[in-house]
Amino acid sequence: MADDFSPLLAQIAEAAICLTDSGDVADYIPALARVAPQQFGIAVATVDGAVFRAGQADQAFSIQSISKLFALTLALQREGDALWQRVGREPSGTPFNSLVLLERERGIPRNPFVNAGALVITDVLCRRYLQPERAVLEFVHRLLGRTTVAIDTEVARSERLHSDRNAAIAHFMRSFGNLQGEVAAVLDAYCAQCAIAMSCAELAQAALFLAADGRQPSGVRVLDPLDARRVNALMLTCGAYDAAGDFAFRIGLPTKTGVGGGILAIVPGRMSICAWSPRLDATGNSIAAAAAIEQFAAATGVSVFGGLPGA
Amino acid sequence: MADDFSPLLAQIAEAAICLTDSGDVADYIPALARVAPQQFGIAVATVDGAVFRAGQADQAFSIQSISKLFALTLALQREGDALWQRVGREPSGTPFNSLVLLERERGIPRNPFVNAGALVITDVLCRRYLQPERAVLEFVHRLLGRTTVAIDTEVARSERLHSDRNAAIAHFMRSFGNLQGEVAAVLDAYCAQCAIAMSCAELAQAALFLAADGRQPSGVRVLDPLDARRVNALMLTCGAYDAAGDFAFRIGLPTKTGVGGGILAIVPGRMSICAWSPRLDATGNSIAAAAAIEQFAAATGVSVFGGLPGA
Amino acid sequence: MADDFSPLLAQIAEAAICLTDSGDVADYIPALARVAPQQFGIAVATVDGAVFRAGQADQAFSIQSISKLFALTLALQREGDALWQRVGREPSGTPFNSLVLLERERGIPRNPFVNAGALVITDVLCRRYLQPERAVLEFVHRLLGRTTVAIDTEVARSERLHSDRNAAIAHFMRSFGNLQGEVAAVLDAYCAQCAIAMSCAELAQAALFLAADGRQPSGVRVLDPLDARRVNALMLTCGAYDAAGDFAFRIGLPTKTGVGGGILAIVPGRMSICAWSPRLDATGNSIAAAAAIEQFAAATGVSVFGGLPGA
Amino acid sequence: MADDFSPLLAQIAEAAICLTDSGDVADYIPALARVAPQQFGIAVATVDGAVFRAGQADQAFSIQSISKLFALTLALQREGDALWQRVGREPSGTPFNSLVLLERERGIPRNPFVNAGALVITDVLCRRYLQPERAVLEFVHRLLGRTTVAIDTEVARSERLHSDRNAAIAHFMRSFGNLQGEVAAVLDAYCAQCAIAMSCAELAQAALFLAADGRQPSGVRVLDPLDARRVNALMLTCGAYDAAGDFAFRIGLPTKTGVGGGILAIVPGRMSICAWSPRLDATGNSIAAAAAIEQFAAATGVSVFGGLPGA
Repeated sequence: MADDFSPLLAQIAEAAICLTDSGDVADYIPALARVAPQQFGIAVATVDGAVFRAGQADQAFSIQSISKLFALTLALQREGDALWQRVGREPSGTPFNSLVLLERERGIPRNPFVNAGALVITDVLCRRYLQPERAVLEFVHRLLGRTTVAIDTEVARSERLHSDRNAAIAHFMRSFGNLQGEVAAVLDAYCAQCAIAMSCAELAQAALFLAADGRQPSGVRVLDPLDARRVNALMLTCGAYDAAGDFAFRIGLPTKTGVGGGILAIVPGRMSICAWSPRLDATGNSIAAAAAIEQFAAATGVSVFGGLPGA
Repeated sequence: MADDFSPLLAQIAEAAICLTDSGDVADYIPALARVAPQQFGIAVATVDGAVFRAGQADQAFSIQSISKLFALTLALQREGDALWQRVGREPSGTPFNSLVLLERERGIPRNPFVNAGALVITDVLCRRYLQPERAVLEFVHRLLGRTTVAIDTEVARSERLHSDRNAAIAHFMRSFGNLQGEVAAVLDAYCAQCAIAMSCAELAQAALFLAADGRQPSGVRVLDPLDARRVNALMLTCGAYDAAGDFAFRIGLPTKTGVGGGILAIVPGRMSICAWSPRLDATGNSIAAAAAIEQFAAATGVSVFGGLPGA
Repeated sequence: MADDFSPLLAQIAEAAICLTDSGDVADYIPALARVAPQQFGIAVATVDGAVFRAGQADQAFSIQSISKLFALTLALQREGDALWQRVGREPSGTPFNSLVLLERERGIPRNPFVNAGALVITDVLCRRYLQPERAVLEFVHRLLGRTTVAIDTEVARSERLHSDRNAAIAHFMRSFGNLQGEVAAVLDAYCAQCAIAMSCAELAQAALFLAADGRQPSGVRVLDPLDARRVNALMLTCGAYDAAGDFAFRIGLPTKTGVGGGILAIVPGRMSICAWSPRLDATGNSIAAAAAIEQFAAATGVSVFGGLPGA
Repeated sequence: MADDFSPLLAQIAEAAICLTDSGDVADYIPALARVAPQQFGIAVATVDGAVFRAGQADQAFSIQSISKLFALTLALQREGDALWQRVGREPSGTPFNSLVLLERERGIPRNPFVNAGALVITDVLCRRYLQPERAVLEFVHRLLGRTTVAIDTEVARSERLHSDRNAAIAHFMRSFGNLQGEVAAVLDAYCAQCAIAMSCAELAQAALFLAADGRQPSGVRVLDPLDARRVNALMLTCGAYDAAGDFAFRIGLPTKTGVGGGILAIVPGRMSICAWSPRLDATGNSIAAAAAIEQFAAATGVSVFGGLPGA
């Protein structure tokens, strides 16, 4: 636990830069497409309070789908297990059949990390809060113990203008009665929440409760231990879009990725890791960030799938 | 590690009997449908060599899909990473779309635990061994250090007579060039392998290498540590048919289930657990065995998704 | 041609009443659910100008999807063959996979009679007309030579309030660039057009150009002969939702059905037939109206699939 | 009816040769891939007994899926309407989802012209005849009034060696109980039947009963008028693979196509037309043969969808 990860992270950051040449920056909205592609950052936050950094670990980027983790946690705090009546807990197979599965399963999304599931979570928050995106942001502030994080309104606006696919999913679920608010309001909140900008160091620190059975280092309880484990389980089986199985195979840790290029990983009992680089592979996951976390896991031996005790 | 799990297992076995009333014994083949439904057994094997038992822990049952774990391990020993060119590593979503996914993905099955994937593994073994089902059986004998396990030929024959669905999958993959042997020979071997009969205690002991980074307590290396972790990852994301996400959520351990009613779970670094009871839920997983393992995990706090070190 | 169909229609109307007991009135919107179920009407309009009636042949009902025929014809008049770049000409298989086909086919609907296709047609009209639903209505007036037909605004409003499924489809196509207007405006026009109220006699007369190679009895050319034939072809392969094959098999004529209970059929070169009764079968087609048209075709021998010349 | 179509056919044959440059000869079996691509023939047989020819109208080719028409007719003669309990009458949408539809519809194929449906028809014939392929061949001989037609055994053998996709479909249906014979026997018969070799003139003459309400010019009744019309309806909605809608739109006649490059079309009450040229478009239909029939229909005005009487 008293390890100094700084030298290892520096070495990983150096190697990662070579990987920032391939892949494509998310370009479905202009505001994201403009991000300089050859950037990389990584940060590790340990359960005993240390934070290690390399590269652009303090550079804010658009967290995009990583926000689903905070929205889910907030919704779990408010709704508890009732939430699972409106959203499932199974991987979805492929994006290709997301709508056909939604139809078969009568508007119940497969899990809270596919867009359909995240829209249901946002709908839940819309009934609890007048400004659900502010509620998510303030929750992040509470997790960090400071109010330095903000929503990038240009990204939010740009995202909202290109939200036809999500509007289709939302109306489809609404036709089954599994979306209760107005679609426009749900999309407003959803796009704003995805446009939260945070750095690797901030994300690693904000999510540390998932490595510590639900409690932040400050001592504040965020989730009870069982729910914290369950969120980690969902991250492992569903957190990396359609590469969840491959991430489990390669990295062996619960992760949540975003098309802004960020990847958050949890080492239960020990630490959280966040890496970031804008260029994505075909599954929408950052190439350099995934490679960096894989390298970190290999070098330190952290994996939920192995390791003898004390090793 | 020096825990005595006997009292806990006895208590779990007592509670489990109440759960053997609901659900249905697998009835797609007569030989399985005849099994007495109100049976239950559980065994725990620890990495330091202890074995704990309760209920009918020494009663042999048809391991069915749990055999896929041994076949995969054997194929990995022989083929190494080349295997992953013929089979994927992602959960499949639902059985409903298994064939449509196979078509989209040009005959490459989603993972080695769906039937399509297991048939590819069997095809690999068919090219390596004259009698692939004997090879799997002998591999199990090596894992156990004794030759007491056998194939139930009546179950194998009955299964072979009702293998049209698997024949469809095999021919379909063959039309894409991802099955090289004769379909009939692959099905013969596959049905025989699924008909291996083992007890909870035997299964827990045979799979212990997965809890010990690839090495059996005897010291024999079965897989290198990385591959052992990868198999655990596949079990967690794909091991429980279409309830894999739910099992990760509820139990938090890599598992492999079979329609004979057996469930094997791995606690990396510590132990393997096997429970058995014939009655299944709608996803084909044993109701009482799943509840028993969930209870064991809750009582001992074992989970790959949480727990502070030393806790 | 100089046949008097009145006695036959009277006989069919009498028989049809017995069929108005089974099936369900469309109930997805309250305004349609309130229609008295035990009604039946039938009318035949011949190319030489005669009109025959039985039952409630002059009772106006909600034409619903039959309006797609008028919208398509109007769009063809304005766009010509360019229309076929935005909409296909193949049957869709089942409603179940409508969205998955839309995804595979990059937002191009299978044909102009599935909802997705009709929404594209409405989008085309939205660019040509400030009030596209008025344009469709006025086109019907021109076809009839009188202005007695109106939109039932209560039905239109009720439909618009329950249009989440169509909104999903529209946004989905818009995400592929195959819907250019605002979704809300397209849905307004679409719901209004579906709420046009007409009687059997009016529908038979309005669609007579399809039986007369594109020309109304008044001599006005509506479509050129080739396009008139093509519309008949689309009606035959795609006009009866997912029972199109069965309608071709049983009735042997191009038809277009609506969930208001109307069915329009074309006998090329001879006549148009419209029957109506509110109760629907599981495919959304009127039970009594389909039986009536089948009986009429059997009694008169009209079918596009047989009959020796002069017979 | 007393038209002489020879000059028109000669002109069409000349134009068609230019179209034999594009497209690909079916190459999934070597025996078909070897056919010289730049061939073209066309024949018209009228209900009053005349036969007109142009190009290689007497050159035998592999009729492939056109054989499904003869098998269906033979099965209808033997089974009557009971047949429709095992096979549907709806177009299938796309080949892509054939297996998923088969699963949803519990092993009942959509129609007798998709491979699944034709395999069910063959299974029916397998229960009626010891050598079902001989039964189909002898039926063709009866239709023609001569025994000059034969099965190309090299094509049959080659097809059988490459029948994994059909074996998959057959086993899949058998798992639902909708295939009663042994899969191997059904495939043997099916591949042999597809390998019947006939010329355009022979095909046009053999199928003439479909243009004559079920009776051959010889006076022999093949089907009752209702069933003859129904077969035409099935040809129109399902006869051209996934281009059925497009064929109805462009050609306006019931057709049945085969990957050997043959296309048979029926003009009810008047004639049958057969054109042939080996090169296929992406939907598996002959480019030059389709264009030739389209041209013939345009020049003569034959269409089931239009034409004023006497015109």
